[in-house]
Amino acid sequence: MKKQNLEKLFAPKSIAIVGASNKKGKIGTVLVNNITKLGYKGKVYFVNPTYKVIGLKKSYSALEEITSQVDLAILAIPAKFVFQTIEKASDSVKNFVVISAGFSETGAEGKALEDKLKKLAQVKGLNILGPNCLGFVAPALKLNASFAGGMPEAGKIAFVSQSGALAVALMDKARSENLAFSEIISIGNKMQISESELIEYLGDDKQTKVIGMYLEGIKDGEKFLKIASKVSLKKPIVILKAGKTAKTQLAIASHTGALAGSDEITSVAFEKAGVIRVDNLDEFLNVLKLASSYEAPTSSLCAVLTNAGGAGVLATDAFKDKNITLAEISPASKKKLRAILPAEASVENPIDLLGDAQQDRYLGALEILQQAKIENIFCLLTPQNQTNVAEIAQVILEKAQARKLNLIPVFIGGEKVASSIAKLTKNNLVNFATPEAAINTFEKYYNWQLFKTAKPEVSTLKLSATRKDQAQTIIKKALAEGSKALSFADGARVMELYGVKAVAHSVVTSENIEKLDLGFPLVLKVDSDKILHKTEQGGLRLGIKNQEELKKAFAEMNEVFKGEKIIAQFQAGKFAEIILGIKKDPIFGPVIVYGLGGIYTEIFKLVNFLLAPMSLAEIETQLLKSKINFLFKGARGQAVCNSREFAEILLGLMSFAQENPQVAEFDINPLFIYNDKQEARAVDIKVIF
Amino acid sequence: MKKQNLEKLFAPKSIAIVGASNKKGKIGTVLVNNITKLGYKGKVYFVNPTYKVIGLKKSYSALEEITSQVDLAILAIPAKFVFQTIEKASDSVKNFVVISAGFSETGAEGKALEDKLKKLAQVKGLNILGPNCLGFVAPALKLNASFAGGMPEAGKIAFVSQSGALAVALMDKARSENLAFSEIISIGNKMQISESELIEYLGDDKQTKVIGMYLEGIKDGEKFLKIASKVSLKKPIVILKAGKTAKTQLAIASHTGALAGSDEITSVAFEKAGVIRVDNLDEFLNVLKLASSYEAPTSSLCAVLTNAGGAGVLATDAFKDKNITLAEISPASKKKLRAILPAEASVENPIDLLGDAQQDRYLGALEILQQAKIENIFCLLTPQNQTNVAEIAQVILEKAQARKLNLIPVFIGGEKVASSIAKLTKNNLVNFATPEAAINTFEKYYNWQLFKTAKPEVSTLKLSATRKDQAQTIIKKALAEGSKALSFADGARVMELYGVKAVAHSVVTSENIEKLDLGFPLVLKVDSDKILHKTEQGGLRLGIKNQEELKKAFAEMNEVFKGEKIIAQFQAGKFAEIILGIKKDPIFGPVIVYGLGGIYTEIFKLVNFLLAPMSLAEIETQLLKSKINFLFKGARGQAVCNSREFAEILLGLMSFAQENPQVAEFDINPLFIYNDKQEARAVDIKVIF
Repeated sequence: MKKQNLEKLFAPKSIAIVGASNKKGKIGTVLVNNITKLGYKGKVYFVNPTYKVIGLKKSYSALEEITSQVDLAILAIPAKFVFQTIEKASDSVKNFVVISAGFSETGAEGKALEDKLKKLAQVKGLNILGPNCLGFVAPALKLNASFAGGMPEAGKIAFVSQSGALAVALMDKARSENLAFSEIISIGNKMQISESELIEYLGDDKQTKVIGMYLEGIKDGEKFLKIASKVSLKKPIVILKAGKTAKTQLAIASHTGALAGSDEITSVAFEKAGVIRVDNLDEFLNVLKLASSYEAPTSSLCAVLTNAGGAGVLATDAFKDKNITLAEISPASKKKLRAILPAEASVENPIDLLGDAQQDRYLGALEILQQAKIENIFCLLTPQNQTNVAEIAQVILEKAQARKLNLIPVFIGGEKVASSIAKLTKNNLVNFATPEAAINTFEKYYNWQLFKTAKPEVSTLKLSATRKDQAQTIIKKALAEGSKALSFADGARVMELYGVKAVAHSVVTSENIEKLDLGFPLVLKVDSDKILHKTEQGGLRLGIKNQEELKKAFAEMNEVFKGEKIIAQFQAGKFAEIILGIKKDPIFGPVIVYGLGGIYTEIFKLVNFLLAPMSLAEIETQLLKSKINFLFKGARGQAVCNSREFAEILLGLMSFAQENPQVAEFDINPLFIYNDKQEARAVDIKVIF
Repeated sequence: MKKQNLEKLFAPKSIAIVGASNKKGKIGTVLVNNITKLGYKGKVYFVNPTYKVIGLKKSYSALEEITSQVDLAILAIPAKFVFQTIEKASDSVKNFVVISAGFSETGAEGKALEDKLKKLAQVKGLNILGPNCLGFVAPALKLNASFAGGMPEAGKIAFVSQSGALAVALMDKARSENLAFSEIISIGNKMQISESELIEYLGDDKQTKVIGMYLEGIKDGEKFLKIASKVSLKKPIVILKAGKTAKTQLAIASHTGALAGSDEITSVAFEKAGVIRVDNLDEFLNVLKLASSYEAPTSSLCAVLTNAGGAGVLATDAFKDKNITLAEISPASKKKLRAILPAEASVENPIDLLGDAQQDRYLGALEILQQAKIENIFCLLTPQNQTNVAEIAQVILEKAQARKLNLIPVFIGGEKVASSIAKLTKNNLVNFATPEAAINTFEKYYNWQLFKTAKPEVSTLKLSATRKDQAQTIIKKALAEGSKALSFADGARVMELYGVKAVAHSVVTSENIEKLDLGFPLVLKVDSDKILHKTEQGGLRLGIKNQEELKKAFAEMNEVFKGEKIIAQFQAGKFAEIILGIKKDPIFGPVIVYGLGGIYTEIFKLVNFLLAPMSLAEIETQLLKSKINFLFKGARGQAVCNSREFAEILLGLMSFAQENPQVAEFDINPLFIYNDKQEARAVDIKVIF
């Protein structure tokens, strides 16, 4: 995977506007104005065969006519002219923004046009942003290479949007919300430059402190995971991913597939890559603001100062089920607090400075907390009659600038707090309108710091060519015989290669029925890829207690399912039933699915997902955080199942999925697991091509 | 329960300020200024023995000196003078606001003072708001009878706050957030006037369209439920209830008690009473704004119009798991839409009018939706370069005023949309900053409409004096014998009175052991209130298969537990295990708790709560919405348990709790239930005094 060099695209020294115009209502006109009138210092060329000049400037009749260096060409011309325009200039111009719509978003014809363009880009080594995009804005260069109006403040947030309109809305919000940007990039159809390439580029961009993305889809799951995991170690990636209710794109018939929601897989992928996922636009802006202005918190311990008991109570509620917590105030600190606060003040956390609190109490309390090494402090304030809002804001500002304290103001009010909030904001503090928003946002930022600190290992799966050969031999033989699925016996042989053992079993024939030696009770099953719902068709007999019953059942089943293979399995007891599967996600490829089996499968939907590659240790860690962790952590003093053994099974499945890509559906349902040192055993295995 | 007449308190024609002052920094001074300088038209008297005049006005030395009618006296004097001041004037003055702090919030002494004051109020028929409150503000009367500054716009929101500081913050927010109030009331210690009395008063108040409350506690659960249920049928009550993480106030040792969270019980109570519960300050303000400006939606069907695909996608996500839904657009309407929209526009819901949409497309689409009788329409807009924001706002405004359409603007942006949002807001439309906030808020309002439409019956429990006598005879006998709990046999007799049957059982003695006639297998148990953990001490034998085993087990158990009662129970099979209990909630009294029993009790915590009184039909409805509804609705085609039978058991428990208040702890764990017409059976019954 070669890194694309996007430097010249996003920081061009010279730009050609193809489709430049000065006719009102034309996108070309907006581009001309945006690029020439907002302070961009580079060279600008206009291209439009209709005109000789545009304004006072020459208009070239074709891009390739420009003899000087053109770092970037922006195309706002009908889709049908885009390919030839780029092709003709492609020896000299290497970076393009294609504003033009009319490509893959319009159907098959447009898709063909886009594919042709993509190929050209590959052959000629071009960078093409779009097509069907808004362009981009680089405030530090005063470059608005888009048809959205205005020039936001230069800052540390890179915003990448799959919706041009949302980029526009955010640019408009920028000033009132105090958002400042290193880049705003509209990615349109993501033909060649998608979220992954931009995460990589922006990860290296010195101006960018935080990457924020609005995405409706992810183009290449594997690439995304690889790049985002790496960049997340350097700077936070915040993604608002829409499409929670979209129908899963591939209909997957297997049982586990039906339980899987691809939105949940996206969440799993984001967590694996250290991406901060936000649920809505409010959260998105809040996290971007906080992460661009504050260093990530290194401690989970927080304090709350307030001049309003009610606000303190709301803050306490907001810490419920969070990874950040209200710190215990030590007896020594409490003593100090009592010395500076009135008797009725609360020195528990939240620290209630009382309604008549002025800057001295805020300052005193901040200093005591600082001595107590509590670094994260939410400073709540309501503008009561006697409150000197500006003075208190000043104290918070000075303390915040003096040293590495994370001071988060939460000034709740309107007119009486507005100018103080403006002052705090101007000095790079972020004021939140409610304690809940402040605490929610802060936790998300802290979680990213946790990811970064854990420095997750870069895992690779240890694949085995020998094992793969053995598995493929079995699979290819079945395919050659025209089967659509492996028999249980073959499935068991394959899974054994990957460390998953099946219950004791044997194909039963009239010849061997006397000497099976599996023990009793037995289960008798028809084992055929033609009969997928064997229970309903009488192809399953449970609880066969002796040789006599066995013979009778075999005779009957042989009669109904003439010529089909019949197998006997030892009917084992169990501690718990597990369901395992492989779900082919359209974005992230084969995903391991596991959960609670048996009658509760559909009631509780305790399903978990794993994305390859993972190490055994990582899988075990996830397992112990999973929705079925109670099996491995114990409840009511029961002996627990072996999490290492089960993690090995999951690792086996992961390897199996990688080495045998032609498997379309895969289920083990159920797998019996035990808490008494018995080995886990697959009872049914479905491998469908 | 006599309704308190609070008319004169909150709409006084004459006011005396006790503790009036003109010294800077005094609360009395703030009160004087607030009441005399903000437009209040009634008579005002000052009382302060220190002065002859305050400003140009006479200062009375005592409240009772004023010979004219005083509708309301506001006290801002030290706590120790409050009682005598009120007592002396109590023949002529009947309404008081006690601003003074220093009562129950300070400890035992203050509590005694408050109790004394409360008694005085009862004896003399007084209305006292507070003590320890901020006062109240009645904008329509231009009356600010509080020590918070300013005079908010008069409007339809009554805001009641247990935190004075939050009331202050909201008053300050009022203008920027376009909040307009009928009343703002700070309730302080809620000595005599709590949320319940105010809900009742505001329920009748013509100016109030929506009641919003910030509460940290509820004073009287039963009264609250009764009043709120009634008022909810007239106007929405929106409550921000803090205290989610507060430790449950009563330590309850029983198993079900340990699972119960009193915050969840508050939620159950609110749902029962039709109260809209909000989770945070943002939601609170949003619902108040919507409910004060819009009629409640009578249909769950919504449409989304947007000029930004991305915003439409976010809106679609926000409908996930909601009670309101995106309406299907009929083929006829789609045809009409296609006729007025460009080919690339989407006529599915969300209807994407495209980035270059102007007022004509919004207007056309609105008219088509109106013809299609879709009444709830979210109008999303991002200010794209070509967007005429003001014109589109005008169209929405006209359509909203023309007829009963619920048009919710969601203009996303900053400077470019600010003046249009201001215009919409001024004309009583509520603009939301994000689609998520709009849709979340709208659903909450719709849910209230659902409650109102369902017109829930006012339930009463049919109690029975005979049954109560019988139960009490058994309980009192055990108490007289010095027992702390009922034996299983006695518990079973009591529960049978309430329609809950126990498994077949009998006390075993050396004499009757030969002729028990319970069948096999049997369970043998020691049945004593001294041995509560019988399993651990060997007081429980399962799976006794025949008479011989029975005799052996009995002899052994008799040896270990000398002199204790031993019982035999038929060891029944089961379909599912249920856990039942009664939890004494400090606010709402006895609450019925039921959930999934057995090994999954603590893992899945499928616990549900019921608040008395309820009818059988109501209980069954709740059961079918409960966390264990899968037992009664069926999963995987299994036969289902009888929901009516189980509802009868729950009703029995509810009656039991009402008729036998001396029971401190009550558990049935487990109750076996069946899906094959067998009756449910209690296997263990714990009744502790």
